[in-house]
Amino acid sequence: MRPLALLVLAVTVAHAQPPTPALIPLPAEVETRDGPPFVMTDATPLVVDPGDAEARRVAGVLAALVGNTVETTPPIVEAAPAGVPAVRLRIDAAAGHGDEGYALDVASTGVDLVASAPAGLFYGVQTLRQLLPARVEYEAALYAPLPVPAVRVVDRPRYEWRGMMLDVARHFFEVEDVERVIDLMALHKLNRLHLHLSDDQGWRIEIPSRPALARVGGRTEVGGGPGGYYTVEDIARIVQYAAERFITVVPEIDLPGHTNAALAAIPEINCDGRARAPYTGTNVGFSTVCVEREETWAFVEDVVASLAEQFPGETIHLGGDEVEELTADQYAAFVTRAQAIVTAAGKRYAGWDDVAHAGLAPGAVIQVWRAQRADVARQVEAAVANGAALVLSPSDRIYIDMKYDESTVLGLTWAGLNGVRDAYDWDPGVLLDVPEAAVLGVEAPLWAETLSTIRDVEFMAFPRLAGVAEIGWTPQTARSWGGYRARLGAFGPRWTALGVHHFRSPEVDWTLGGVE
Amino acid sequence: MRPLALLVLAVTVAHAQPPTPALIPLPAEVETRDGPPFVMTDATPLVVDPGDAEARRVAGVLAALVGNTVETTPPIVEAAPAGVPAVRLRIDAAAGHGDEGYALDVASTGVDLVASAPAGLFYGVQTLRQLLPARVEYEAALYAPLPVPAVRVVDRPRYEWRGMMLDVARHFFEVEDVERVIDLMALHKLNRLHLHLSDDQGWRIEIPSRPALARVGGRTEVGGGPGGYYTVEDIARIVQYAAERFITVVPEIDLPGHTNAALAAIPEINCDGRARAPYTGTNVGFSTVCVEREETWAFVEDVVASLAEQFPGETIHLGGDEVEELTADQYAAFVTRAQAIVTAAGKRYAGWDDVAHAGLAPGAVIQVWRAQRADVARQVEAAVANGAALVLSPSDRIYIDMKYDESTVLGLTWAGLNGVRDAYDWDPGVLLDVPEAAVLGVEAPLWAETLSTIRDVEFMAFPRLAGVAEIGWTPQTARSWGGYRARLGAFGPRWTALGVHHFRSPEVDWTLGGVE
Repeated sequence: MRPLALLVLAVTVAHAQPPTPALIPLPAEVETRDGPPFVMTDATPLVVDPGDAEARRVAGVLAALVGNTVETTPPIVEAAPAGVPAVRLRIDAAAGHGDEGYALDVASTGVDLVASAPAGLFYGVQTLRQLLPARVEYEAALYAPLPVPAVRVVDRPRYEWRGMMLDVARHFFEVEDVERVIDLMALHKLNRLHLHLSDDQGWRIEIPSRPALARVGGRTEVGGGPGGYYTVEDIARIVQYAAERFITVVPEIDLPGHTNAALAAIPEINCDGRARAPYTGTNVGFSTVCVEREETWAFVEDVVASLAEQFPGETIHLGGDEVEELTADQYAAFVTRAQAIVTAAGKRYAGWDDVAHAGLAPGAVIQVWRAQRADVARQVEAAVANGAALVLSPSDRIYIDMKYDESTVLGLTWAGLNGVRDAYDWDPGVLLDVPEAAVLGVEAPLWAETLSTIRDVEFMAFPRLAGVAEIGWTPQTARSWGGYRARLGAFGPRWTALGVHHFRSPEVDWTLGGVE
Repeated sequence: MRPLALLVLAVTVAHAQPPTPALIPLPAEVETRDGPPFVMTDATPLVVDPGDAEARRVAGVLAALVGNTVETTPPIVEAAPAGVPAVRLRIDAAAGHGDEGYALDVASTGVDLVASAPAGLFYGVQTLRQLLPARVEYEAALYAPLPVPAVRVVDRPRYEWRGMMLDVARHFFEVEDVERVIDLMALHKLNRLHLHLSDDQGWRIEIPSRPALARVGGRTEVGGGPGGYYTVEDIARIVQYAAERFITVVPEIDLPGHTNAALAAIPEINCDGRARAPYTGTNVGFSTVCVEREETWAFVEDVVASLAEQFPGETIHLGGDEVEELTADQYAAFVTRAQAIVTAAGKRYAGWDDVAHAGLAPGAVIQVWRAQRADVARQVEAAVANGAALVLSPSDRIYIDMKYDESTVLGLTWAGLNGVRDAYDWDPGVLLDVPEAAVLGVEAPLWAETLSTIRDVEFMAFPRLAGVAEIGWTPQTARSWGGYRARLGAFGPRWTALGVHHFRSPEVDWTLGGVE
């Protein structure tokens, strides 16, 4: 009897799967199944419908992922060879999964992924990716078969806006660094990259009609470093790289405050007509463009026109925060006119919650960072009643430039310590007293006063950004800190494989990941 | 009484220091002292002797380190202001510390660092760096005073050759990646960067007289990726960057085997006169230049002449390993003539231990990778008796491309699993039966069949490379696994601050680092 018992045990172990796979964000519905896994190899056919270029492109993402570990990549074909286990990727507009949803069936005999639109197919591939062993993330590790647990997933996101903001103004980050951020966002199904392109310490985008902005404003940063800026070609590259991963880039030029770099580049937008000295400290609130000068409005028009041209996305963000040098009337008049300029350019206006009480026209997007302040909350609720929509970025939860805990060297503390649980364990549905439909989604800002390398960015973003991704994607009823914490602990090896410099927070049991 | 007791406790905690500071490599002599720490700030004067340009340059390294966290950097002056605690950096040829040694005294009233030569002063600064809080490693973190524990260190290295080899042939690594490796080597007082510049899968250096080598041989790598090569300007930049950190770059062109990339680029060095097809697999032993052709010798002459021109260091490494396609006589004749060409170019010849039995002239450097094989050990010992010197790279200890343990996805296993303790806990003084003076030092090779990113490189190198640095630097009597393990655990936050993607080996208690 003994050999037989051992055999049974071995089979059991081979088929054993974690009770819930380490998926972040957690899909809306996940059903693990009995039965052996699907085993993916470099020869597994990826089957797409004849002539479906979008499905073929998304299949290419999966092929490149699996193919990284071997000389060849899985073939993409339009008909499955008989009897060969295959991965079928299908876009069917009638499937009813919405713009970003999908259904994924994994059995030992094959994988079936169907979506109603390309983004959904891409997100289904990201889920399949997270079901593959973490080793698949290495580019050059030696080949081994890749088991995928038998599972059925039916999924779609809670919110349409699932974002991260990167402050490239306080410190400049190269295009390659931005692409790295985009890659890591895509892994977690985030779809909005908000670039904070200007501030007192730097102007980071070429505006061809106003070359001084980047030439002068681009050569400073916090602490006196060299700064930098994105050329028109750089922006096109970033926008394209993001679009291939179904991420929309939201540009922000902060106005009328946080503008010293522009004030240093363009004398005429100062009330005294004199260029300001460059600024490389970390104070806020001291700068403003001259709202009484028509030169300022010509500048705003030029900048908005260039943003509208360079960024195909719907939204242009014009900041509006922390203005201390204008009267309330001056400020409100500025916001009203700025919104009109954005609207006239065919775009949707967005601003920080400071703009909530400035008499916005309907259709504005308000990015809420001070929901914990009762006066701000009431202003935002009133603005929603007047037709504004919200992106939620509560600073005491998901400002991921706040320190994790007292041990964190990087980051700031003015909004408190934002631990891994703090960043995760809240419900955007009840943050404010507004109709559910008024909330577009969530976004985690990462301000960069103290961050100067991509490694710094990664350390502050992970694990917290993954939690924000889940808040934005997963139904509230399916979320719990305990469940998330367990999946996070098991997720470690994937970040390790990707070389993500993440904080090994003591809030998480990283040993759950086992093999690294 | 109670408030007073609390006060005493607070003072005690403030002055508490770890029993041994987390220094890697451990200095030859470290004496921790009672008394308050020295507190370094961005205003602490760094005092150098009038006109000492070398000391001023090394002081600049310290100033940049401390100044990274603040707008300004500490001033470098030639006279200490009275009554201000200062760091004094002095080169005194008569101080008796050798080429790389130094003495460092830290008291609350000031820091005194003296060396006999610039390299020693640089290493003293690295020790001071490791005594500063890990937070100093962040480039942009907000400023805080930096306490340095009161200590006296008298130090010099055990071996003159403390190296790492990076295989840039199997996968190509950009100049920035090589600079990153150099930075991390310098932190641990390593001083030889051996670049494995050619192999079957790629030729990575421009040889101006033979442009086809890089143009053809440079465009392949393992797995079919794009490859790449260093131009003459790239090499000059790497050599300079290394020299500023007192690291000598040792170039290796592997001959007569491991040459498929050259054979693909230059038809005439094949016996049939026909270029070989490119190779992107991971086999070894199948390729050799045609040793009977004078075209081959012209090729070797050209390559050695260019290496001699591009690399100012003493040594040129010509490989010589794993040749299976030549007779023993052919092989020996090749090695003899190759050594003569290197010698004629004014350089010292080095090769892998395969060359040990090939009739080397005195003065050769043998890099020992198979000391565990009795036949190889006897051959190497005989070569030493004939005037060869050794660099020790035992593959079952410090081939840091071997997996750490069964959980490691990256790396190979043909020489076994090389855990953190395995890589550390051996004595180069007794590995072979040779006189102590015959051992130049130690070097950790990192082969890159499975590594394609700098993050992969870091993961395999750390922590093991730090252990190799200590083996090469620290007296054997001062070393123990237990002591090293504790310092390693406490060292974690410094690597984290630097964003070093290191393996959190379960052999180490990483909680010893406390604050990250």
